[in-house]
Amino acid sequence: MAILKDLAELVQGTLVGDGDIEIRRVAPITEAAEGEITFIANPKYLAKLKNTRASAVILPTAVDEGRFAQIVCPNPYLAFAKILTFLQVKKPAAQGVMEGARVAASANIGEDVTIHPGCVVGEGVAIGKGTILYPGVVVYDDVTLGEDCVIHAQVSIREGSRIGNRVIVQPSAVIGSDGFGYAPDGRQYFKIPQVGIVVLEDDVEIGAGSCIDRAAMGQTLIRRGTKIDNLVQVGHNTVVGEDTIIVSQVGISGSTTIGDHCTFGGQSAAAGHLKIGDNVTIAGRGGVTKDVASGQILSGLPLMPHKEWLKASMSFGKLPEMRKEISRLKKQLEALEMSVKEK
Amino acid sequence: MAILKDLAELVQGTLVGDGDIEIRRVAPITEAAEGEITFIANPKYLAKLKNTRASAVILPTAVDEGRFAQIVCPNPYLAFAKILTFLQVKKPAAQGVMEGARVAASANIGEDVTIHPGCVVGEGVAIGKGTILYPGVVVYDDVTLGEDCVIHAQVSIREGSRIGNRVIVQPSAVIGSDGFGYAPDGRQYFKIPQVGIVVLEDDVEIGAGSCIDRAAMGQTLIRRGTKIDNLVQVGHNTVVGEDTIIVSQVGISGSTTIGDHCTFGGQSAAAGHLKIGDNVTIAGRGGVTKDVASGQILSGLPLMPHKEWLKASMSFGKLPEMRKEISRLKKQLEALEMSVKEK
Amino acid sequence: MAILKDLAELVQGTLVGDGDIEIRRVAPITEAAEGEITFIANPKYLAKLKNTRASAVILPTAVDEGRFAQIVCPNPYLAFAKILTFLQVKKPAAQGVMEGARVAASANIGEDVTIHPGCVVGEGVAIGKGTILYPGVVVYDDVTLGEDCVIHAQVSIREGSRIGNRVIVQPSAVIGSDGFGYAPDGRQYFKIPQVGIVVLEDDVEIGAGSCIDRAAMGQTLIRRGTKIDNLVQVGHNTVVGEDTIIVSQVGISGSTTIGDHCTFGGQSAAAGHLKIGDNVTIAGRGGVTKDVASGQILSGLPLMPHKEWLKASMSFGKLPEMRKEISRLKKQLEALEMSVKEK
Repeated sequence: MAILKDLAELVQGTLVGDGDIEIRRVAPITEAAEGEITFIANPKYLAKLKNTRASAVILPTAVDEGRFAQIVCPNPYLAFAKILTFLQVKKPAAQGVMEGARVAASANIGEDVTIHPGCVVGEGVAIGKGTILYPGVVVYDDVTLGEDCVIHAQVSIREGSRIGNRVIVQPSAVIGSDGFGYAPDGRQYFKIPQVGIVVLEDDVEIGAGSCIDRAAMGQTLIRRGTKIDNLVQVGHNTVVGEDTIIVSQVGISGSTTIGDHCTFGGQSAAAGHLKIGDNVTIAGRGGVTKDVASGQILSGLPLMPHKEWLKASMSFGKLPEMRKEISRLKKQLEALEMSVKEK
Repeated sequence: MAILKDLAELVQGTLVGDGDIEIRRVAPITEAAEGEITFIANPKYLAKLKNTRASAVILPTAVDEGRFAQIVCPNPYLAFAKILTFLQVKKPAAQGVMEGARVAASANIGEDVTIHPGCVVGEGVAIGKGTILYPGVVVYDDVTLGEDCVIHAQVSIREGSRIGNRVIVQPSAVIGSDGFGYAPDGRQYFKIPQVGIVVLEDDVEIGAGSCIDRAAMGQTLIRRGTKIDNLVQVGHNTVVGEDTIIVSQVGISGSTTIGDHCTFGGQSAAAGHLKIGDNVTIAGRGGVTKDVASGQILSGLPLMPHKEWLKASMSFGKLPEMRKEISRLKKQLEALEMSVKEK
Repeated sequence: MAILKDLAELVQGTLVGDGDIEIRRVAPITEAAEGEITFIANPKYLAKLKNTRASAVILPTAVDEGRFAQIVCPNPYLAFAKILTFLQVKKPAAQGVMEGARVAASANIGEDVTIHPGCVVGEGVAIGKGTILYPGVVVYDDVTLGEDCVIHAQVSIREGSRIGNRVIVQPSAVIGSDGFGYAPDGRQYFKIPQVGIVVLEDDVEIGAGSCIDRAAMGQTLIRRGTKIDNLVQVGHNTVVGEDTIIVSQVGISGSTTIGDHCTFGGQSAAAGHLKIGDNVTIAGRGGVTKDVASGQILSGLPLMPHKEWLKASMSFGKLPEMRKEISRLKKQLEALEMSVKEK
């Protein structure tokens, strides 16, 4: 529950209408009822306001309408996210090391931490203030976890990993599994010990079931603010820059470096030992096999500018027809050659 | 162990031969021995009957053979599955809340439930009669689980998920992980709280390691009878219809709606906010980027009718030759133009 | 810590220089300091030796340099892996069944085993000498685990699986999940019980989050020495030969047989019921839809020889231009035909 004017202040928006009304929660525009706030991010949906029963609406520009109050701000989607967080996300009260959790004697557990039953925390681990481990989390020896992290059920964090503040890890993700490295010995493969670590900087989020391999030597590094979706693979010694978005089922091979503010679409991939610049977008299913300079939007395997790929892929279905046409042209040309010769 | 005539009745098949023989188990046709039953689903394998040592065979039409008894029925594969289930699948005896499981005081646990050691069941959870949680299952607060579900080891079911009856979840699957939603704030991303839930209706099966994201608001819904294979990603607010088959490593993005009785082949994908009709088949590796009407079989990225894709893809390898031919034709034509001009 | 001459003996290399120096650890050539050993596998990096501060270098051929000692051997990469293992991989001391682990009374636990807290080991399980189960591993009934295995956190091994010696399983992998088999009953699907098992032979490694499905009947088999990366799917009744490499996010459908010493690149796939020979390489994202004879390097979907695919894929982006050229040629040819007719 909040007073509307406080929400307007929270998002630094301009209040239009009665700022003293009480707002209970956020709802989609078609479902919002009295006491609820909704939002319009895209002006093309403004017509939907006609039927909304919301008590307040977050908008990019004010509308002339008295049925609801308004918070006007340049980024309504961001304001919606902030208000939703404020109203509906309550951090559970800290419960300490709960019965049924096992924490090694040498672990250093901060204030206001919650470690649920079924968690196992190894020797030499440090866990910062306010961090929550949901049931069944396994933290191997010598891991460092920062403050206010949320580590969901069944996550494994292997030895020596270093995790920053406010990092969120969804269930069953694996941090620090062995990189995939073997030395061929004629026919068999000899495992190369993976003695490096994984570093996740502040504000990183790792999706459910995703795997971030530890480095062979040195570190695999995910920089501040990068968000990784479910079932993503990140190979050993790879570096992913800041504020990069990696969508579900992407595979990044080992020793590749990705810049800041990139986006990898679903099921895309990058081969190993590559350098990918900043602000690069790889469309879904794209496959990076060469270095990529900054600022490009690329698709396909092999990669090409997204617009070219769209055109080329539209022609793909025409291939059988093209072959027939080439064959017809050939015959037609030969016939004409004959007739010219004969003249 | 069963008497053959009882098995014939179970599958509503016609008995040919001695109905009083005892059948111990089901076996493949080449391995079946005395006391065992096998099946032929496809008439092209009838020749294999010559050497079988099975005591009984499930067949689409009777054969003139006295060495084995027969159960004749229109769908031998289904009959085989039912007989195999009857003979060889024993539900383990219920064991209640076992030592080493932790169940919150406010959880409502039905009769004949088994909750193995290492499970953690949260506040306000309801678990229906006969449901089994294998070791290490984590059920967050306020989850509802129906009757006769089988939830395998290491599965996480996050807060508020609603799961029907006879749902099977393979190990390490994640139900209700956060959807992947962020509001860009210039350069950084602000997490949009995912306050919705996941609903799995009756008779759904979720494969090992698959992730079904909770809705941003509202629900992600998998309807009755749908079967999802391993390592599949289903995004937030997505709806999958009834009796749909989703093969391994498929990725369905958020807010997409899939109809009933569809099939998604391995590694196929759908972008977000799409509508896919009923009885749609997407071939392996297909990529859905637009709405799809009911009743189609589609392949490729971009999608096209499967038969067209087969033809086009056969031509793909001819591309270099085609380019050469075009270039040759061009020269040949220019030469001819010259010679015509000269005449 | 080791004496250099002992390391030379370990890898059967030729010692050049002072064999009595002490080596503490292995380091990359640019970072190695005094007391450390590094390696050069590829002669093109020999120039980097100029600035190295390593006390010793593993090399394919001796160099004329007195600043560091040398171990000369034909496979420096393999020697590096062996020395790294020798110097830096210490097997932790056996701890037996630790407090907080649950082991069924009928389980047969070998000498020098470590079973961490949170593990659950079922009835009739046998675990060989020296094997380690990290926290949260669930071993269902009647599983056999060989000697010196390392099973990481949150791994599930379902009933009846048979696992050889020195097998490594990374966190959250699933061994023996149900195969994906259903008998269609008009509209709905009836689950086919998966009553077979999984067999992992000696020296197999399974990556984090990978899923190896149990057989419908019989067994899914991964042969000796095969290495499987993260998030890989192997379907029921599939057989993978010896010393085969399967990179991350590969999907192998059911009942397919893969030979020895194959390589599957990242995100590649094979359909079901296929036979793939020995020494086959499938490039990343390749899709196998037909049987493959031994000794080939293949790419694409449909598959073609890798070199052909490289050429064809280079032409893909030219498709729109090709269509235009065909259209131009057609017009040009028609114009020429007209002018010839007129003459």
